[in-house]
Amino acid sequence: MASNSFGLHWRITTFGESHGPGIGVVIDGCPSGLAISIEEIQAELDRRRPGQSRLSSPRSEKDQVQILSGWFEGKTTGAPLTLFVPNEDSRPADYDYLKSAFRPSHADYTYDLKYGHRDHRGGGRSSARETVARVSSGAVAKKFLALQGIRIFSYVSKVGSISLPESLDNLDLSRIDDFAIRCPHEETAIAMEALIDEVRVQGDTLGGVISTVVKGVPVGLGEPVYEKLSARLGFAMMSINASKGFEMGSGFAGAEKKGSEENDRFITTEEGKIVTSTNHSGGIQGGISNGADILFKVAFKPVATLLQPQQSVNKEAAEVTITGKGRHDPCVLPRAVPIVEAMTAHVLMDFWAMSKANQLID
Amino acid sequence: MASNSFGLHWRITTFGESHGPGIGVVIDGCPSGLAISIEEIQAELDRRRPGQSRLSSPRSEKDQVQILSGWFEGKTTGAPLTLFVPNEDSRPADYDYLKSAFRPSHADYTYDLKYGHRDHRGGGRSSARETVARVSSGAVAKKFLALQGIRIFSYVSKVGSISLPESLDNLDLSRIDDFAIRCPHEETAIAMEALIDEVRVQGDTLGGVISTVVKGVPVGLGEPVYEKLSARLGFAMMSINASKGFEMGSGFAGAEKKGSEENDRFITTEEGKIVTSTNHSGGIQGGISNGADILFKVAFKPVATLLQPQQSVNKEAAEVTITGKGRHDPCVLPRAVPIVEAMTAHVLMDFWAMSKANQLID
Amino acid sequence: MASNSFGLHWRITTFGESHGPGIGVVIDGCPSGLAISIEEIQAELDRRRPGQSRLSSPRSEKDQVQILSGWFEGKTTGAPLTLFVPNEDSRPADYDYLKSAFRPSHADYTYDLKYGHRDHRGGGRSSARETVARVSSGAVAKKFLALQGIRIFSYVSKVGSISLPESLDNLDLSRIDDFAIRCPHEETAIAMEALIDEVRVQGDTLGGVISTVVKGVPVGLGEPVYEKLSARLGFAMMSINASKGFEMGSGFAGAEKKGSEENDRFITTEEGKIVTSTNHSGGIQGGISNGADILFKVAFKPVATLLQPQQSVNKEAAEVTITGKGRHDPCVLPRAVPIVEAMTAHVLMDFWAMSKANQLID
Amino acid sequence: MASNSFGLHWRITTFGESHGPGIGVVIDGCPSGLAISIEEIQAELDRRRPGQSRLSSPRSEKDQVQILSGWFEGKTTGAPLTLFVPNEDSRPADYDYLKSAFRPSHADYTYDLKYGHRDHRGGGRSSARETVARVSSGAVAKKFLALQGIRIFSYVSKVGSISLPESLDNLDLSRIDDFAIRCPHEETAIAMEALIDEVRVQGDTLGGVISTVVKGVPVGLGEPVYEKLSARLGFAMMSINASKGFEMGSGFAGAEKKGSEENDRFITTEEGKIVTSTNHSGGIQGGISNGADILFKVAFKPVATLLQPQQSVNKEAAEVTITGKGRHDPCVLPRAVPIVEAMTAHVLMDFWAMSKANQLID
Repeated sequence: MASNSFGLHWRITTFGESHGPGIGVVIDGCPSGLAISIEEIQAELDRRRPGQSRLSSPRSEKDQVQILSGWFEGKTTGAPLTLFVPNEDSRPADYDYLKSAFRPSHADYTYDLKYGHRDHRGGGRSSARETVARVSSGAVAKKFLALQGIRIFSYVSKVGSISLPESLDNLDLSRIDDFAIRCPHEETAIAMEALIDEVRVQGDTLGGVISTVVKGVPVGLGEPVYEKLSARLGFAMMSINASKGFEMGSGFAGAEKKGSEENDRFITTEEGKIVTSTNHSGGIQGGISNGADILFKVAFKPVATLLQPQQSVNKEAAEVTITGKGRHDPCVLPRAVPIVEAMTAHVLMDFWAMSKANQLID
Repeated sequence: MASNSFGLHWRITTFGESHGPGIGVVIDGCPSGLAISIEEIQAELDRRRPGQSRLSSPRSEKDQVQILSGWFEGKTTGAPLTLFVPNEDSRPADYDYLKSAFRPSHADYTYDLKYGHRDHRGGGRSSARETVARVSSGAVAKKFLALQGIRIFSYVSKVGSISLPESLDNLDLSRIDDFAIRCPHEETAIAMEALIDEVRVQGDTLGGVISTVVKGVPVGLGEPVYEKLSARLGFAMMSINASKGFEMGSGFAGAEKKGSEENDRFITTEEGKIVTSTNHSGGIQGGISNGADILFKVAFKPVATLLQPQQSVNKEAAEVTITGKGRHDPCVLPRAVPIVEAMTAHVLMDFWAMSKANQLID
Repeated sequence: MASNSFGLHWRITTFGESHGPGIGVVIDGCPSGLAISIEEIQAELDRRRPGQSRLSSPRSEKDQVQILSGWFEGKTTGAPLTLFVPNEDSRPADYDYLKSAFRPSHADYTYDLKYGHRDHRGGGRSSARETVARVSSGAVAKKFLALQGIRIFSYVSKVGSISLPESLDNLDLSRIDDFAIRCPHEETAIAMEALIDEVRVQGDTLGGVISTVVKGVPVGLGEPVYEKLSARLGFAMMSINASKGFEMGSGFAGAEKKGSEENDRFITTEEGKIVTSTNHSGGIQGGISNGADILFKVAFKPVATLLQPQQSVNKEAAEVTITGKGRHDPCVLPRAVPIVEAMTAHVLMDFWAMSKANQLID
Repeated sequence: MASNSFGLHWRITTFGESHGPGIGVVIDGCPSGLAISIEEIQAELDRRRPGQSRLSSPRSEKDQVQILSGWFEGKTTGAPLTLFVPNEDSRPADYDYLKSAFRPSHADYTYDLKYGHRDHRGGGRSSARETVARVSSGAVAKKFLALQGIRIFSYVSKVGSISLPESLDNLDLSRIDDFAIRCPHEETAIAMEALIDEVRVQGDTLGGVISTVVKGVPVGLGEPVYEKLSARLGFAMMSINASKGFEMGSGFAGAEKKGSEENDRFITTEEGKIVTSTNHSGGIQGGISNGADILFKVAFKPVATLLQPQQSVNKEAAEVTITGKGRHDPCVLPRAVPIVEAMTAHVLMDFWAMSKANQLID
């Protein structure tokens, strides 16, 4: 089954394993003439890379991107744009202890039963290393969207039980990368990082929530029935490794409100523009963007690999004790920020093209 | 843009407006030889129908399904199976007051700007009446899945601030339809219904949460990267009108846990079967079903149409006061239960076929 | 498998059997605001209808089209446009003699082995009656294209061994429908019709060739690799019942030429426009339209059902003699003309939308 | 627009330009556990490679294939299988004379108008070098199919006006590669090669026809309406560079016959198997394989690049004289043989998977 692609008009097809030659992506539907440099793509990959800080794994993967096709003299050509990141520093022996054991809450068991074999050297396609492909291609989408005035900001809004205060009014989105945890609120960021430090020494891990704000989206992206913008965003976010939940705007909290509290009232600005006075809808109504900021949250479970002993079973259904080896993040949230941004960009690019296809008569 | 289809192998294409001749669906990929009666399809439609109880709108739509193709002597033929439900009792005049006004948190505004016109007679394709097509075709999927031992149970677990107690241990899933609110726990159901009564007389509305349990799913449905079973379920649920959030298993709450608390430990049953001792994952690991019950929740916002005055604007950006007329539900949750079940069935049917396509060598 | 759709952006999904309630089509991706009347659609169906002349079957199917969705006050709404043609005058008993016999060169045998059963009452989905759906939806596509200045002309250029003279210079395309055979050259038309009369009385049948000229196609439709305009046209034409071959421009004859003879030389017109002095390419170079007339031919085999005895076998592999009963055309070519035009229109509509999706920056 | 993929279940996505780093292909939907060596893939590429004989271009491209993903210890893993062939020996300067001129019957003009620019260094995606990707991935498909007993034989049946005698009875398909021209009939092969030699010295080129026989296809591949096996084959063949026509079985010649001559009569073999006594249908009836050999032909126009002067125009619509430089084939037919085989294999693999998806209950 062809299931390694995402998108219809802007379609990424990704390939590669964590312990093969590398990870790559073909972008089909990339417009011609987009100026983008290798450095711009690399910058996004560097945000995803392990080893950026004490919060993440000390693996020193360089993740240097190469462009294999579709790019000439600094611009895209309209042909498939292929990005490839060779693997380095792979230590398959790190994973030998996993040859037959099923790690709890990993894809080991399901993968093994589905495919009749499993690449224990790092999870094959179920490895989060596949997100190298999502992020590198996402950098191209983000560049295109930025030229249309669309900017995507994701940040960590919760780690374990520590949350950002609800009000976003004082959030300075330009400061997201100023903190290793990628939460743009100093006090909260410090508390989150302290919690991670505490849990790491226990060999334990933490999950959390990433919030996203998209600014500058025009009215009209999304389709009214199955291809709702909110539905595609949910699809994209739930396809990210370890994601467990997705909510638009006020989400689950909004479900507790009355209609008279939750409805976003339309008002007219002094310039005569129709806007909403609140944004519980998260910028999407009836599946179609309404011009307000797009707001959504993604929940991530704690990293499943622990550096403390866990009971499990192996292929023979015998009990085993597993203690994670190798290099693993105690909290994947800061590295997931560019992944969430990338998947958001892929969805928006696809709808951007879709909206053009709809304009049959111009 | 072709955006009125859902699914790849089991693909539904839906058509029709709330105030045209009717609502229909073509199922392409329907297997040959499935025994299904009109009554079985009708039974699901009757669960979605308005006017079932005081909780829902008093419209007396009969929603009688017809089979237009793909069915012969009580069985499917393998050809496209087309179901059609003629519209009755439509009162377009009820909507005349909406010709130019934008109802808060409805698709009126976005639809109008996207299409340059709007069918004010009931929302065109943005109307929830489109779900007639999802539910009728879902009845066929449910029948097929039931024959494979897969049973889908959705129920209302929250209305406004009233929730089911967390533990599911004492839930009798066979009693879901015993209560108008479709919550299978008597005490909670009574409290929910009382709250809806209270809010209805205020001309206000309520949202809530629907929980789903799928039993009997074999190991191995779902693909490891973009076509994760959890991602497709998220896509499907977020495509339902008024849905605002989706979570698998422990979801947002699980994001607050440590890995040592959240991980589902593998154990071996006395029969030698590998299972998990907990099910925080909601039956899916690495995007692939693990044989445990599939568990997820969907948040729905309160109905946007209020029978109390609301301030809004019209096309000319002038202020208007809107008071909902016509027949509207104070809480859509009980009628959304068969819709959630139908969309679950569509996703599972699609992956069922996908898993066969994968078995290239048999 | 979902295989009853054609097209990506302009996508038709067809349903219905020859002996069920009727034949229908959902057009997804139909632009909003296209003015089209039921009469315009009916006019195309009337060209496909049996019983138009002595050349075709005397069945008096009225084939009256209904619009089930996506149309309001004479215009398309952008929602799925559904057309439905109820079946009339079906005489299933005509087909009883076929319950177990396999007609030579029909789909009986392959259909039976594929599906494990067969709707002998007229072929199920393998019946040419499915083309009612292609033609009715094609009328909408033709209307849209005509408004863009694109006109499609198909005509019968060969019946059995009788061909139109090669030169098209004196062909008056406005006269196609003046002759029952739909060949716009009086002398040839008369000869073709005489040949059909002669063969009909023998209980035999004839095949032939349909030629197509498309005028007004802009430069740039089609994609350079797999989605060549010529490839999609070939796909569309080979999907028509009884088609056996397809060729673009000079086709098989051009394969015999040297490059110096076959190449279409570019020249500049007095107005400074670049055109080709010949059109052996048939208006497509490298898969992309070049602004010249699009020219292609489709070969159709003779109708397989004969009104003379044929030897065959039945399900039990025993020998049987079959003599066609019911009402069958001795030559399907004139009725296939609107089908070829419709499929051409579907392909062009799809590429029209595709070319808009490509114009990401406007 | 995403248009660089072919197939639904077995889907190839190709990338790369003739003058960039290389040409590649991602196969999504490749089954797990297929044993295939680099040498087996290389062998097919070597058949496509230029410089094999005096009949083809003297470019000495080595076309050494690498496997970038989806392959471990000699077997496919079920993950996307990526093949990459680095470019060597590219001489962009060879193409400088083409910067502004439009070569007759090339994609130069259409490509330029479509994309607003053109990679004159060899045609970008319109270059036939893209077929490296088709052939390398086709080798994997052929290996899988061979294990199921399906064997594909393509050969040159016509060059210019020299054709194979019609009867295939004495054709020894095992000898196809014994002759540089890839026509397995010595006398005809010698005559074809002599004709090519004659035309080459004139700086001119030749087209021709490739015939294909597929043996061992089971009954039931193909779908009855749009996804006819014959339609997909037509689509695939018409997507090959320079192809101008496609015909199944008796094709255009069959269109001249009467039904009583053309129909393939069913008979029963001594073993009680139902077969046809003739195969004018080319092994496909109603779009579905009937178990007989699949037979079709593809017409190729003569190579457009001539090594003799041709009149043309440039971007400024001024007249120019072009004389082909660089290394070009006088007749592309022998090198197109593996391309036709590869595209045949891609279509059959896709339908093989599709037929499994149809078997929902096993």
